[in-house]
Amino acid sequence: MTTDTLEKYFRGQQVSVQWLPVLRAMGSELAGSADEGDLARLFHAIGGRMAASASEHFQSVQTLDQLQERLNAYWAHVNWGWVALNEVKGGMDIVHYASPLAEAFGQQTINWTAALLEGFYQSIFKVLGAGDKMAVRHMGAAAEGMEIHLRFGR
Amino acid sequence: MTTDTLEKYFRGQQVSVQWLPVLRAMGSELAGSADEGDLARLFHAIGGRMAASASEHFQSVQTLDQLQERLNAYWAHVNWGWVALNEVKGGMDIVHYASPLAEAFGQQTINWTAALLEGFYQSIFKVLGAGDKMAVRHMGAAAEGMEIHLRFGR
Amino acid sequence: MTTDTLEKYFRGQQVSVQWLPVLRAMGSELAGSADEGDLARLFHAIGGRMAASASEHFQSVQTLDQLQERLNAYWAHVNWGWVALNEVKGGMDIVHYASPLAEAFGQQTINWTAALLEGFYQSIFKVLGAGDKMAVRHMGAAAEGMEIHLRFGR
Amino acid sequence: MTTDTLEKYFRGQQVSVQWLPVLRAMGSELAGSADEGDLARLFHAIGGRMAASASEHFQSVQTLDQLQERLNAYWAHVNWGWVALNEVKGGMDIVHYASPLAEAFGQQTINWTAALLEGFYQSIFKVLGAGDKMAVRHMGAAAEGMEIHLRFGR
Repeated sequence: MTTDTLEKYFRGQQVSVQWLPVLRAMGSELAGSADEGDLARLFHAIGGRMAASASEHFQSVQTLDQLQERLNAYWAHVNWGWVALNEVKGGMDIVHYASPLAEAFGQQTINWTAALLEGFYQSIFKVLGAGDKMAVRHMGAAAEGMEIHLRFGR
Repeated sequence: MTTDTLEKYFRGQQVSVQWLPVLRAMGSELAGSADEGDLARLFHAIGGRMAASASEHFQSVQTLDQLQERLNAYWAHVNWGWVALNEVKGGMDIVHYASPLAEAFGQQTINWTAALLEGFYQSIFKVLGAGDKMAVRHMGAAAEGMEIHLRFGR
Repeated sequence: MTTDTLEKYFRGQQVSVQWLPVLRAMGSELAGSADEGDLARLFHAIGGRMAASASEHFQSVQTLDQLQERLNAYWAHVNWGWVALNEVKGGMDIVHYASPLAEAFGQQTINWTAALLEGFYQSIFKVLGAGDKMAVRHMGAAAEGMEIHLRFGR
Repeated sequence: MTTDTLEKYFRGQQVSVQWLPVLRAMGSELAGSADEGDLARLFHAIGGRMAASASEHFQSVQTLDQLQERLNAYWAHVNWGWVALNEVKGGMDIVHYASPLAEAFGQQTINWTAALLEGFYQSIFKVLGAGDKMAVRHMGAAAEGMEIHLRFGR
């Protein structure tokens, strides 16, 4: 057994069988019916609503470490992988690992489905007091969608 | 404990925690951004693609009983409840029980999310040889979305 | 559709397909290889260990309402139904609803599998300062195992 | 992200949260209350019962390839990884990959929990006509329990 085989097996298990066929069909159908900009806006908005429904977990956060810990408790609870936050000049690097987006909607949708995480993190940062000039942007995906890079800044 | 309390608990368990917040957010976001006719067309198309990915299970079906049995084996596998098919003059009554649609996308979306089942059954009947003049139509939902009534006919 | 049919469907979904065949086989095998007293002691001990691994959630509890709330947050997280606690003279009535025990191990095992909940609650009460003379006892099950009655007292 | 981190994450997701605390507690409790030989016999018997409840899937199998295919359809359905069968002189090598046993009951129990797979395969081979002198034996585990080696022979 190679590590690749095991990883492929685990990826196949990642999305519940109740939703995999629906989400895959949704990914293909949406890809064929709108442009990537519109789809990214839709998924950004979905991520924002998702964050709003979870925002109680993040309200009293004081430090970056504490924020990362609370986020990871939430992501572990919903089986959405984990996140690493790193302060950089003028903002923050965000790497989200092992989200089920690529497996659920299909690898080829990651450019716009990743906008769900943009919208999610942006909403959380706003709850924590970030100003309107700061935004979260999707910078690209690696490792077949298992790593999604985002940047929080002006 | 009343039966209602137990049913409410089980409904709350029906949709995996990995997708519930996403699907709920998607239901609300879509409801606010397009009209019900367009959303029903989208979900009809998603149901059609979902059926296409499962059509191998239904190809050699000979009788209505056999079709119902195969459909229910599929629905049980994906935890989407069960279906009852009944021949009526000029077509068929279809009642789909305990689908997770209302719980997942929100009760208020059932008018257009039920179109997913329209598209699914229509695709299956087409694989089995139904002519182009026959269509599946959503007739209404009962029992808080736990019963979705459809009709196959001209 | 009767309410019974829906409840039966939901019960069939309650236990994940990864463990249902194993737990059912375990229930039958254990039932045939030891007496109910020994099996109850085993499941009591398993429940105690389960509580020990979750005890951090309950340590700072001050009131009965708060305890019930924390327990129900835990039970909801692991899909083990919910509990109602009621003070009575000399102790407490505990009713645990919708645990997956009967569905998982088989209805006929509920006399001894319910001891898992005895062991769980006893461990929690001990963490909260209950003396050694106080014990949790299984008083019986109703509603096909969907209601498990326990009593905390001398 | 290293591959190890991802694999560790996926392993942590492998067992449903409804049963992980119970199975872990069961693994520790059983390990402390009986010797490995008795526990292996118990799990061998559990595996045999599990196979009996699934044997309809395997009855009409004609070739080794077909058997492997049917087994893997079953294992995929229940999220128990996959198996490779290879004929060798006087018997068969069986390697079962990615079973949830080590994650569920704890790494240190694999010597006796793997007997569940012994009992399972032995029952299946018996249904297919294997004689009483042939037995399945657990030969050892590798890759932190992700590979379980068994041997079918005299």
